Amino acid sequence: MQWETGNSCKINVKAITVLGSTGSIGTQTLEIVEEFPDQFKVLALTGGKNLSLLVEQIKKHCPEIVAISDPKLLPELKERTSSILSGKGKKEPLLLAGEEGICAAAAWTNVDLVVTGIVGCAGLLPTLAAIKAGKDLALANKETLIAAGPVVLPELKKSGSRLLPADSEHSAIFQCLQGTPWAKDVELSTGIPNPGLRSIHLTASGGAFRDWTIKELEKATVSDATSHPNWSMGKKITVDSATLMNKGLEVIEAHYLFGLDYNDIEIVIHPQSIIHSMIELNDSSILAQLGWPDMKLPILYCMSWPSRFETSWTRLNLKEVGKLTFMEPDKEKYPCMQLAYDAGRLGGTMPAVLNASNEEVVANFLEEKIHFLEIPKVIESVCESHKKDLNKKPTLEEILYVDNWSRHKVRELIKN
Amino acid sequence: MQWETGNSCKINVKAITVLGSTGSIGTQTLEIVEEFPDQFKVLALTGGKNLSLLVEQIKKHCPEIVAISDPKLLPELKERTSSILSGKGKKEPLLLAGEEGICAAAAWTNVDLVVTGIVGCAGLLPTLAAIKAGKDLALANKETLIAAGPVVLPELKKSGSRLLPADSEHSAIFQCLQGTPWAKDVELSTGIPNPGLRSIHLTASGGAFRDWTIKELEKATVSDATSHPNWSMGKKITVDSATLMNKGLEVIEAHYLFGLDYNDIEIVIHPQSIIHSMIELNDSSILAQLGWPDMKLPILYCMSWPSRFETSWTRLNLKEVGKLTFMEPDKEKYPCMQLAYDAGRLGGTMPAVLNASNEEVVANFLEEKIHFLEIPKVIESVCESHKKDLNKKPTLEEILYVDNWSRHKVRELIKN
Repeated sequence: MQWETGNSCKINVKAITVLGSTGSIGTQTLEIVEEFPDQFKVLALTGGKNLSLLVEQIKKHCPEIVAISDPKLLPELKERTSSILSGKGKKEPLLLAGEEGICAAAAWTNVDLVVTGIVGCAGLLPTLAAIKAGKDLALANKETLIAAGPVVLPELKKSGSRLLPADSEHSAIFQCLQGTPWAKDVELSTGIPNPGLRSIHLTASGGAFRDWTIKELEKATVSDATSHPNWSMGKKITVDSATLMNKGLEVIEAHYLFGLDYNDIEIVIHPQSIIHSMIELNDSSILAQLGWPDMKLPILYCMSWPSRFETSWTRLNLKEVGKLTFMEPDKEKYPCMQLAYDAGRLGGTMPAVLNASNEEVVANFLEEKIHFLEIPKVIESVCESHKKDLNKKPTLEEILYVDNWSRHKVRELIKN
Repeated sequence: MQWETGNSCKINVKAITVLGSTGSIGTQTLEIVEEFPDQFKVLALTGGKNLSLLVEQIKKHCPEIVAISDPKLLPELKERTSSILSGKGKKEPLLLAGEEGICAAAAWTNVDLVVTGIVGCAGLLPTLAAIKAGKDLALANKETLIAAGPVVLPELKKSGSRLLPADSEHSAIFQCLQGTPWAKDVELSTGIPNPGLRSIHLTASGGAFRDWTIKELEKATVSDATSHPNWSMGKKITVDSATLMNKGLEVIEAHYLFGLDYNDIEIVIHPQSIIHSMIELNDSSILAQLGWPDMKLPILYCMSWPSRFETSWTRLNLKEVGKLTFMEPDKEKYPCMQLAYDAGRLGGTMPAVLNASNEEVVANFLEEKIHFLEIPKVIESVCESHKKDLNKKPTLEEILYVDNWSRHKVRELIKN
């Protein structure tokens, strides 16, 4: 879009929507916008419960539309927005609430790129709204593909919307794929495999319990599981990292994003989190993307793609790092990994069941209602129960139904 | 070119010339041709002294022209070629000898790609002949750019000839650069920097003496210096690897190939030789190319570029490798490295002096006329002597003159 600056001169900027602007991905996205004011302009924001931060973001970025998920917070949002903007000559944004409001922000006109930072299944409908509106997406919401892959892929094809992966592993693969001979044809046709791509290798830090034995895991507490060795992330995703479910979900996401067979997607434990992932090409060459563990780079790459913008961020010096190690993940210690491969191979509604039951089980673990070692057992049991109802070509409604069913099933299992 | 197969059907193949076909690069190139008979056809071969192997290659590949460097061997080549081809219904190749013959083969008509596997300064004139004929080059001969960079760059621009790097480090950089946003404009404009490229990191195994102390080097023998830990290569280059002069020369080559300032070309010791080199982009992302230490992959990439051809070569499994390490090279232990940076920064004729004196000194070392630790001292002394005559914009004749002068100077220094 063209944007009129303070001096009334027009510049070309990329117009951005940030879904989940008060979360970890959202705040980092806005930091990038602030770092590159000539490149980006925020037109739409959506937030959850952190009203103060959302109001601060409105003040700083003057978006055209803002939506908040809880309708009860809308009056307060209106009042505080009005008070900070009144008398400043700034136009007040359209303020909405609830799922409809968030979907309206996701599909807001004139926007070039929607950054989907909403965590969990709540991100699904807004992301689909953005896709239907033909927006390009910086995808940080895993559920979009994991739970709703069978619905999202045809929608992408219909609208011409392009999915840019914003998490570090898929961004690494996406960055490496740019250099392959077939990139021009397939790089953004989600789900269509690059014919020269033989396999991908997703790296995993190994999470909080990397150096624990299975025996020691019996004593694992919530506080143990929420201390990640390399990445600073939310609690839920840190637990997923400790169970390696995080990596299992990324395997499913990679399957949908890059169109690869599950046999050609490998997980490798790489404790230093420096190589963010690798691709193996058909001539046996391997390309890797490296960097410090920092989400800002993959987010920026989505935003700058197909270009790259110069940063003054800390440069990676491998001589300082000294050593990179790699090992086979222990299947016995990380049963969630296999559950994810199994669910992915079954396809249809099964990845949605896996994902929803994992979200619910982890929430219960964080509330100390179950022990760490029970997490995979409950998920496996829910997936097993769903097998007889597996739907290979579900609609969105059917996906949302099994999502809800899975959460109920988890609660039922934990209660008994 | 179009090539008529045995069944008289025409297929599109890449027509190849192999300069130095009996050497290490040459034989590996022909192995690749044999592995991909539908993709490549050899039209021209040139060899040195190994007549039997050259005759065998003629029998197998039926080239149109063959040249041998020593004119005295021409009659025998003619006789043996005639005897193997007579009565087989195969057309005899044009057989030539000497520098002129090799240059004729290098510029042979209908050829798409010239693989320059001739080692040392002898490769310079044939490579220039190929460039002047507008051929694309798979460059394995370092001297082309190191000694004759100031002459070669303008010739490339004039003829439109494209330089594809065939050694593993520069191939790694070239492969990684394909994925950068600016690749289309600059990827093959030798000497023009990619605006998004911040630095390159050339990896070095550390050579035969990687784990030796400086004190221990006093006892280093020829046999010690010619045992490379990772790569199986010729003796001269294995010694260059032990002195790190090899890496220093690659720094100069990278400067000419990728147009980077010497401050932005780093050497990192990486004993496992798995990461073949890396590029750092301006947004702080690092891309690396990995593989087993095997020259065939970079040679194949030159030949298949801009595509990649499927191989069944041994796949790299990082879980088996387990560990990759990186360290700062020891400047005191490897003085040749600094000599190369210094010569590169002076430019003009100085890299030619460095290269020629190194060739001559290493030959003397292999004949046990000097000790390993004297190698850098002699080279430094020759470079020092040349400083007063440094020519910033030399002609080819002037480069050949200083090459010759440097070799004499080395012999003179060693004699006294």
